[in-house]
Amino acid sequence: MGKGSEIKLIGTAESPYVNRVQIVLNLKSIDYEFVEENLTCKSELLLTSNPVYKKVPVLIHANKPPIPESLIIIEYLDEIYSDVHPILPSDPLARADNRFWANYMDTKFFPLFEELRKTPGKEGKKAIVKQIIEGSQLLEEAFVKFSNGKPYFGGDDVGYLDVVLGCFLGWTKFVEKHNEFKIFDEARTPKLLEWTNRIWSHEALKDVIPGSETLKNFYMILMKYKP
Amino acid sequence: MGKGSEIKLIGTAESPYVNRVQIVLNLKSIDYEFVEENLTCKSELLLTSNPVYKKVPVLIHANKPPIPESLIIIEYLDEIYSDVHPILPSDPLARADNRFWANYMDTKFFPLFEELRKTPGKEGKKAIVKQIIEGSQLLEEAFVKFSNGKPYFGGDDVGYLDVVLGCFLGWTKFVEKHNEFKIFDEARTPKLLEWTNRIWSHEALKDVIPGSETLKNFYMILMKYKP
Repeated sequence: MGKGSEIKLIGTAESPYVNRVQIVLNLKSIDYEFVEENLTCKSELLLTSNPVYKKVPVLIHANKPPIPESLIIIEYLDEIYSDVHPILPSDPLARADNRFWANYMDTKFFPLFEELRKTPGKEGKKAIVKQIIEGSQLLEEAFVKFSNGKPYFGGDDVGYLDVVLGCFLGWTKFVEKHNEFKIFDEARTPKLLEWTNRIWSHEALKDVIPGSETLKNFYMILMKYKP
Repeated sequence: MGKGSEIKLIGTAESPYVNRVQIVLNLKSIDYEFVEENLTCKSELLLTSNPVYKKVPVLIHANKPPIPESLIIIEYLDEIYSDVHPILPSDPLARADNRFWANYMDTKFFPLFEELRKTPGKEGKKAIVKQIIEGSQLLEEAFVKFSNGKPYFGGDDVGYLDVVLGCFLGWTKFVEKHNEFKIFDEARTPKLLEWTNRIWSHEALKDVIPGSETLKNFYMILMKYKP
């Protein structure tokens, strides 16, 4: 993570979307500089690098224009460092299928966590928990299809969907504990449950995914600033 | 559009997302079968081809699993028919930038049209019109950057962003007329206004983009079933 690296990543340690990029940088053994952002007082660098959304992560490669949006960044990294640990498969149909499920996770599944946080009252939360559980069952089916008996969505090693879902594992564990229900469990999602335990200790993730204390503190900040 | 074609496209003629796929099929001179869908009574084919979203478009290539989601479909087509009229550039940074703006259009800009339709009252609509106009100015800046003095986002000929934005031209004209304001105009978005006139008569679009009467009828159906 040396200064002066060709790659700069603007982010915060608690963001799964930032963690997603870190995991891919690790998988591909790319040295990078992590530029920590303060989301309660955004830096000039962030505001000028991502004027449309003003959000992390943003990747800056050498002196090129900045790239925002985690899925776009990891696909960029996969294209420029295609020879080391490719994360997307080469077959166009399999690529399309990977993109479909990544899009499902980012636009349907993960936003439910934020909705759960913001929804007041037991009844309201219960309805969202139901949707999360239905979503996890869809993801179980997807995992069975993609992994085809192997350990990861990507087959024998971590691939695109392992990264896209795996970056959220700290948050899924936090949400489970905080709301007293299981997102992944033995009865409904046995294969994904095994997968979470397997990927949790993978080299590329283990120093990236924040611990429960860090996430708890961040959750408190969110509740204060964005209730 | 022969039956028995290797490519089947499930869609409706009024959907800009379906039109998007048709434009790319035209640009690449790919013969396809158009399977017209009735959205008020969805077919078994659609429900089984896209069980997660139950939406058009869906592309079925030979006997392979179906591919939903317009951006995913057009990227698939660009990968399998890469030798005829490529729509994404080959440079990874330019690809990332194209994907960023397509994502902006699909997640921020176009949803405002639907929000405008659903919002009751003059004041509510006025606030959304303001956002559409701000969005169109961002798109003007993007156009100036991408086209770099040439006629299209893609340079000398229609590229990815020309397709992604161009498929909405029927609807932008309809929304302008129906709500009595200009999305693209001489003062704020001079370059994009020129572009709309240019692309409107492009071979690949002209038999695809629905006319104002068709869109008006569809709008009435929307107001009835999804007010």
